[in-house]
Amino acid sequence: MGSRIEAVYRVRSDAKSIAARARGIALEQSVEMPIGPIDDAFVLEEVVGRVESIEDAGDGEYNVRIALAAVTTGGEAGQLLNMLFGNTSIHDDVRLLDAEFPGDVVAAFGGPNHGLDGLRARVKATGALSSTAIKPQGLSPSALAKLAGAIALGGIDFIKDDHGIADQSYSPFAERVPAVAEAVAAAAARTGIGTRYLPSLNGNLDAMRRQLALCRACGLDAVLATPMLAGLAQFHTLVKENPDIAFMAHPSMAGGAIAPPFLLGKLFRLLGADATVFPNYGGRFGYTKDDCRRLARNALEQRAGLKPCVPVPAGGMQLARIPELLEFYGRDVMLMIGGALLAARERITEQTARYCEAVRAWN
Amino acid sequence: MGSRIEAVYRVRSDAKSIAARARGIALEQSVEMPIGPIDDAFVLEEVVGRVESIEDAGDGEYNVRIALAAVTTGGEAGQLLNMLFGNTSIHDDVRLLDAEFPGDVVAAFGGPNHGLDGLRARVKATGALSSTAIKPQGLSPSALAKLAGAIALGGIDFIKDDHGIADQSYSPFAERVPAVAEAVAAAAARTGIGTRYLPSLNGNLDAMRRQLALCRACGLDAVLATPMLAGLAQFHTLVKENPDIAFMAHPSMAGGAIAPPFLLGKLFRLLGADATVFPNYGGRFGYTKDDCRRLARNALEQRAGLKPCVPVPAGGMQLARIPELLEFYGRDVMLMIGGALLAARERITEQTARYCEAVRAWN
Repeated sequence: MGSRIEAVYRVRSDAKSIAARARGIALEQSVEMPIGPIDDAFVLEEVVGRVESIEDAGDGEYNVRIALAAVTTGGEAGQLLNMLFGNTSIHDDVRLLDAEFPGDVVAAFGGPNHGLDGLRARVKATGALSSTAIKPQGLSPSALAKLAGAIALGGIDFIKDDHGIADQSYSPFAERVPAVAEAVAAAAARTGIGTRYLPSLNGNLDAMRRQLALCRACGLDAVLATPMLAGLAQFHTLVKENPDIAFMAHPSMAGGAIAPPFLLGKLFRLLGADATVFPNYGGRFGYTKDDCRRLARNALEQRAGLKPCVPVPAGGMQLARIPELLEFYGRDVMLMIGGALLAARERITEQTARYCEAVRAWN
Repeated sequence: MGSRIEAVYRVRSDAKSIAARARGIALEQSVEMPIGPIDDAFVLEEVVGRVESIEDAGDGEYNVRIALAAVTTGGEAGQLLNMLFGNTSIHDDVRLLDAEFPGDVVAAFGGPNHGLDGLRARVKATGALSSTAIKPQGLSPSALAKLAGAIALGGIDFIKDDHGIADQSYSPFAERVPAVAEAVAAAAARTGIGTRYLPSLNGNLDAMRRQLALCRACGLDAVLATPMLAGLAQFHTLVKENPDIAFMAHPSMAGGAIAPPFLLGKLFRLLGADATVFPNYGGRFGYTKDDCRRLARNALEQRAGLKPCVPVPAGGMQLARIPELLEFYGRDVMLMIGGALLAARERITEQTARYCEAVRAWN
């Protein structure tokens, strides 16, 4: 990888200091030392970060574009993030706004194995997709299975574990997943819709591998993973090792100073997310319409060598908003409505059916 | 684990909304849904987060103390962070300020295997310790080995890889580590100081295990790891699997909305960091004196079942500041001075000797 990754940082600075501050970031994210004592020609030419441009973004902020040598990533996902933002994440005057990945980097990481078309094919859909989460954590495997079965009977496309459901004593992964998978499969056989259940992977790489083996043994072909908690290296490894499994990425621990359109839309896609969950505008999180639009565009836009990743707006969505959301995102989306289904309690199958009909009616 | 972890969040809010906002966080970090549809008694009593207190912190901010059920962590490091701050990290009105871990949680995670006394014993020291980093990345294994040897001849206690040095084509881990280890061992044999070299672990869990095996084969007994990049589960697993190895934690990707004294001082210690590197006040990062004082206190303070973790202030330190830093931190510290040594170029052994003499003179 002899190319450069072009990273764009948003820096708070006065006009007088911005050139020096930009050079400081270029050094911090490459050699991490002053340039003076460096006399190695390879390091100076091929490793030191280069400030490509500085642009006034208004309000005392600047967009600083820095070309980082792709060779410093070692073709490894954790080190990629380390080089993009590791130490600079600690500076509170800088955010990582975006990065452009050259072709050799895209080829090295590879992106989604399935993407939008693969997820649609699983449920024989052609338009927008529906999904939900089973919760709360604390319920027994049988209670979660009963809940998932009732939802699947309503004809939903995808059901994921809530991201807080891990491998706790009250609901061990090895008991919960077979129980829920069986309930969903039984309901799916009745509806004719290939509803998929996505268990939430958790723990270290060994644990997630064991969990994936169990998922496969239960006939499942999609899972939920949290790249920022698992570590990007683990996420990318699992994607590469399991080309038959679709990966939905969850944004837990994705807060901080990396712009969501880049992190959840572009970087998670590069590392293999087939779908990416994010907090929709107007829910209980603070993402703006513009964040969501750019995130979905990053996830979907045509890019040689990268399948599109399905944007999954979530976080406090109501059924009444379905037409608005589909109008905003179009057909290339998976809606996720959780709490608003659970609120229907014993009428959850009917509520799910209403939800799915509203999505399919729009398609 | 039937206990509760008491997490303290700093929330920006008006007085009218804070009670509801606090309840919202307690739900988000436990059941992640409204309480209305929950009728399971175990979930309501043993799983739902409880707001314990709300305290006006001034300037439109509040300290909200929430008791989170330890059972929801499943005794697993990644899930611990998920429950402490996962989804709430996405809210930009909340920071995670602190958390108190009860005895059963401390016992489950276990803390450092070596800690302050173990690191001192490695270099037969009794007071403050000295350390540095070899860089820049891009140098060949032999150039880095030569540099490390020259530094070790100056009598330093610990030499770590720069955190950007990973497993790149220009300096593969498997070539670099034996070369540097040999150069440091040869110099240490001449000085009589047991200088330790700490390679930087990188990649996924498999890769880090292979790297640790190589370190051990080279006679090394300490390494550098980056918990936030590796994923906390990987870091904690490696600590548990390698009780003979000391782990120094690096703060790459530790920016964001978790207070550094808690994250780098308390949480990394709980998960087994024997030493914790952090950006010192007055360097090129923005930590305040108060941050640094509280971080060091969290790392060191007596706590049943947890060895003390060595605070390692770093980030643009100069030799002239040694007396000030030792006055501020006292004897229970490891200083880290990197770039200011490298700037001495061919006089680096003498510069290192000056550094180490200044530290030892103060002890």
